[in-house]
Amino acid sequence: MSIFTKIITGEIPSYKVAENDDFIAFLDINPNAKGHTLVVPKKEENKIFEMSREEYSNLMDFSYTVAKALEKAVPCNRIGMSVIGLEVPHVHVHLIPINKMADIQYIQKVKLSNDEFVALAKSIADKIE
Amino acid sequence: MSIFTKIITGEIPSYKVAENDDFIAFLDINPNAKGHTLVVPKKEENKIFEMSREEYSNLMDFSYTVAKALEKAVPCNRIGMSVIGLEVPHVHVHLIPINKMADIQYIQKVKLSNDEFVALAKSIADKIE
Repeated sequence: MSIFTKIITGEIPSYKVAENDDFIAFLDINPNAKGHTLVVPKKEENKIFEMSREEYSNLMDFSYTVAKALEKAVPCNRIGMSVIGLEVPHVHVHLIPINKMADIQYIQKVKLSNDEFVALAKSIADKIE
Repeated sequence: MSIFTKIITGEIPSYKVAENDDFIAFLDINPNAKGHTLVVPKKEENKIFEMSREEYSNLMDFSYTVAKALEKAVPCNRIGMSVIGLEVPHVHVHLIPINKMADIQYIQKVKLSNDEFVALAKSIADKIE
């Protein structure tokens, strides 16, 4: 069972920003930049391009909804997106408010307190349309 | 007019792997890893999440088609995807055959000859379904 499945089942707590029957979005607790969010399918799959075209399409659509809220909640140049998957074998879309390349290179991390994570997740969740 | 629009109009040559009425995919000439491909909407737009949900959805669907071909043409752990856009203000999806994090961090570049680019583009194009 992946760490993300443990988050989905509630075994591990998370700062959730959005959820529907098939997907969940929560804050990355080791963010590249403030607002770094992960969008994850509840069905545990390893590689994004091994998802069916329909599942992939639904994941991308849900990611669009989350990105639009993120863009409103966190001031930034733009929302960047990446899917890598070399570390956790459960598909996850990174949505990151970026201002410079380093924000999406996974070479820097920012620290937030629990209170900051809670307030940030709420401010994004409030803007989901 | 962006450098990608010049590629779309043919003013600048490219190693094309796929094209339809709305999108084009061609090899990045300064690739992070062999097979690094860019998928670009012909309509010049700056930010991916400022595209309409439908345009975005079609771009993602076309990217899926290209990624499946890329995966067959270039042996790799998986196809990574990223959208950044801080340098060229014309939406582009990076599809990159990755084996390690550095392949998608934009910190290393690989060199290919013209003949290698031509053969690589053809081998990907031949696998588009």
